[in-house]
Amino acid sequence: MSARFDSLREEAWLANREIPRLGLAILTWGNASALDRDAGVFAIKPSGLEYDELKPENMVLVDLEGRVVEGALRPSSDTKTHLVLYRAFSGIRGICHSHSTHAVAWAQARRPIPCLGTTHADQTAESVPCTPMISAADIERDYELATGELIARSFEGRDPLRTPMVLVAGHGPFTWGRGALEAVRCAAALEELARMAILTLAIDPEAGPLPEHVVRKHWERKHGKGAYYGQK
Amino acid sequence: MSARFDSLREEAWLANREIPRLGLAILTWGNASALDRDAGVFAIKPSGLEYDELKPENMVLVDLEGRVVEGALRPSSDTKTHLVLYRAFSGIRGICHSHSTHAVAWAQARRPIPCLGTTHADQTAESVPCTPMISAADIERDYELATGELIARSFEGRDPLRTPMVLVAGHGPFTWGRGALEAVRCAAALEELARMAILTLAIDPEAGPLPEHVVRKHWERKHGKGAYYGQK
Amino acid sequence: MSARFDSLREEAWLANREIPRLGLAILTWGNASALDRDAGVFAIKPSGLEYDELKPENMVLVDLEGRVVEGALRPSSDTKTHLVLYRAFSGIRGICHSHSTHAVAWAQARRPIPCLGTTHADQTAESVPCTPMISAADIERDYELATGELIARSFEGRDPLRTPMVLVAGHGPFTWGRGALEAVRCAAALEELARMAILTLAIDPEAGPLPEHVVRKHWERKHGKGAYYGQK
Amino acid sequence: MSARFDSLREEAWLANREIPRLGLAILTWGNASALDRDAGVFAIKPSGLEYDELKPENMVLVDLEGRVVEGALRPSSDTKTHLVLYRAFSGIRGICHSHSTHAVAWAQARRPIPCLGTTHADQTAESVPCTPMISAADIERDYELATGELIARSFEGRDPLRTPMVLVAGHGPFTWGRGALEAVRCAAALEELARMAILTLAIDPEAGPLPEHVVRKHWERKHGKGAYYGQK
Repeated sequence: MSARFDSLREEAWLANREIPRLGLAILTWGNASALDRDAGVFAIKPSGLEYDELKPENMVLVDLEGRVVEGALRPSSDTKTHLVLYRAFSGIRGICHSHSTHAVAWAQARRPIPCLGTTHADQTAESVPCTPMISAADIERDYELATGELIARSFEGRDPLRTPMVLVAGHGPFTWGRGALEAVRCAAALEELARMAILTLAIDPEAGPLPEHVVRKHWERKHGKGAYYGQK
Repeated sequence: MSARFDSLREEAWLANREIPRLGLAILTWGNASALDRDAGVFAIKPSGLEYDELKPENMVLVDLEGRVVEGALRPSSDTKTHLVLYRAFSGIRGICHSHSTHAVAWAQARRPIPCLGTTHADQTAESVPCTPMISAADIERDYELATGELIARSFEGRDPLRTPMVLVAGHGPFTWGRGALEAVRCAAALEELARMAILTLAIDPEAGPLPEHVVRKHWERKHGKGAYYGQK
Repeated sequence: MSARFDSLREEAWLANREIPRLGLAILTWGNASALDRDAGVFAIKPSGLEYDELKPENMVLVDLEGRVVEGALRPSSDTKTHLVLYRAFSGIRGICHSHSTHAVAWAQARRPIPCLGTTHADQTAESVPCTPMISAADIERDYELATGELIARSFEGRDPLRTPMVLVAGHGPFTWGRGALEAVRCAAALEELARMAILTLAIDPEAGPLPEHVVRKHWERKHGKGAYYGQK
Repeated sequence: MSARFDSLREEAWLANREIPRLGLAILTWGNASALDRDAGVFAIKPSGLEYDELKPENMVLVDLEGRVVEGALRPSSDTKTHLVLYRAFSGIRGICHSHSTHAVAWAQARRPIPCLGTTHADQTAESVPCTPMISAADIERDYELATGELIARSFEGRDPLRTPMVLVAGHGPFTWGRGALEAVRCAAALEELARMAILTLAIDPEAGPLPEHVVRKHWERKHGKGAYYGQK
């Protein structure tokens, strides 16, 4: 095992461990990966393993053509979706796919999540987009690859780091970030705002979106040029 | 205590311990069993014991006629339902019955759970069936046996391992698999998809089923001939 | 501190510790008591203490006239309600009051919980009753005492051990049993069936009650003369 | 680091640690502060830190003009809101801001939480107020300061300790008390009554408020002159 990728495997392993800790998946569901962009290699969860069996050395190294570079196990069945996103979104270095309950519910309803409050605006200034339903032809061609392309198309002309999350219709959420842990934390934030949105609409089915000036302020104070949230 | 069945007891005990860990039952509710098909004997939870009191040696051994073969305690009150299913479904070696909250809600509403997303399709390509309500005559005759027969009749002409789960109307879920742990994990998956389905319908009461081509793809990639989910 | 009541204090302490463990209350909410019927004395949680501060010796001993017999602390503000129930229901030896979320929701909606499934029928063959709203005059007279009387009146001509639970309108649940731990477990069962009932009605607002023959069977197999649930 | 404020830092640290323990926030969301009114200094959570990284010495000391008095880290981005409340509400010594799920849902629906039961009345005899939506001009001027002023205006002519909680429209709850821990516990109580109110309205959308005589009694027995809840 090449020592060169030890910290990449460690990063992917730590991020995957956070998935069940943050309540984002049960059993073996969900996966996270971390990319070394210079090497063109990412480390991803092996398919179907229990989270508490995972070790850094189980992480599978895959290149951006989808070839396993290192690792004894088969990589996540969603590996090609990760790969397409790493190629399409040049600014990202981590991806998380979960089946978190409330985000999945929105994906199953095939609806974008409207921005109803500052919890949402702290993550993104837009609705959480929902892809179209994948076609039979796309599934026939290459399901996981086509899923990635479907996501990438939803972000054409947009900065994927301004809305680092998407719902795949009928399936569930993908999130990403500058690292794998950031991607998993984004999945946790998405699950929470998805849950809050369902509850808000239970109180008032006509609840309107957060006014644009509040949305912009919250996003800017955390992610804008003059951001003053956090320590950096 | 015959050493021959030590591993069967161990398997049943481990599976029962997973029931509360996976949040599928409170107090003493629920039970799991493991079958040794060659011996025609299964190990099942004793009736009414707390989960953290359970030990492998508490598991009760019962044959397929319902006779206690070994064990000082009375077996689960649902033992005859397990027995009928083991007889009717020749491919299974484990059964779980839980009172998990959202699956019970569907059973109480007496409705099959429609397949609204890939989380569901990963488990089964069909709706989760719901039995008819048990008749007064069937209860009079032999309640737990008749419950098993009601389930078995719902699967006539179908492969029970393609849909390893059922809702008993007004009661709750039974799940099964090639082993006891697989049956309990199936119960956890069922609870989660039952919960997602309720939330999806809360967002959109008209939410339609997942298109057949996606259903088939997800089921096939995990359970079909060319399955590529997991490590085998 | 008289050794005579050591085991009574221990029983009340153990039962109170189960309240937060079973998710029935946050902060200092809720209380349980255990009665020594021969001595006419019960041990109850002191008012307003955190659950993890509780020790057996904190439990306050009160007689059936409401006089503190032993204990340095002030007893639960609901002490008189416990006392009235111990007087009115001669077969009980333990009481629990909680503010568990879903049972409180039914109490706030001022509706009995209909028996929609076997999880409910395993606990009681009837709806969970809801008292009328307490009157201003009753509050003026003696609030906690009058609350007990309101409950007792709801059970006139009925066996309180066949339905060991009630909702106090606008307030929350009281449960009881042959001991304090049984009362707390009953509160956990009530919370769960209250939650299941809300979810069932979310799936189908017209969901009908469980047929009488199933209700009776489930109650009988657990509590009737020929009961075969559990180990006794 | 001046020893004078050691206990203030300790108080703020303990209160912040309770936020995730009581399930009031995920990730780095939420913050609590403790005031030394004589010194005119409060200790507050640093911005964007993980809860399990916090130590007493991380707490940032800020004066009532908003100047950092001691501490290497940047204080919470909500610091000015705390500051305005400390100035406006002379009886308080602790503040908590959370993004707890159900309280946020009410804030996003921009509705006060009606008093539907005694769990609510134990905390306040009134509806939980919801501020108007903040204006673009107020955001332009000074967002966090203006948020505090918006809250303060909602309490003009009212005793903020009788209703130690508010929903900021589109955002989430702020709570306060005689100390930081009291403020955090108040946030936990608010979250629970917010959840109960949603569930009550799910059972009966027409559910009426708790009658005034019960509201008053519950508030009085816990907070009134002749209060007999708790040990003081």
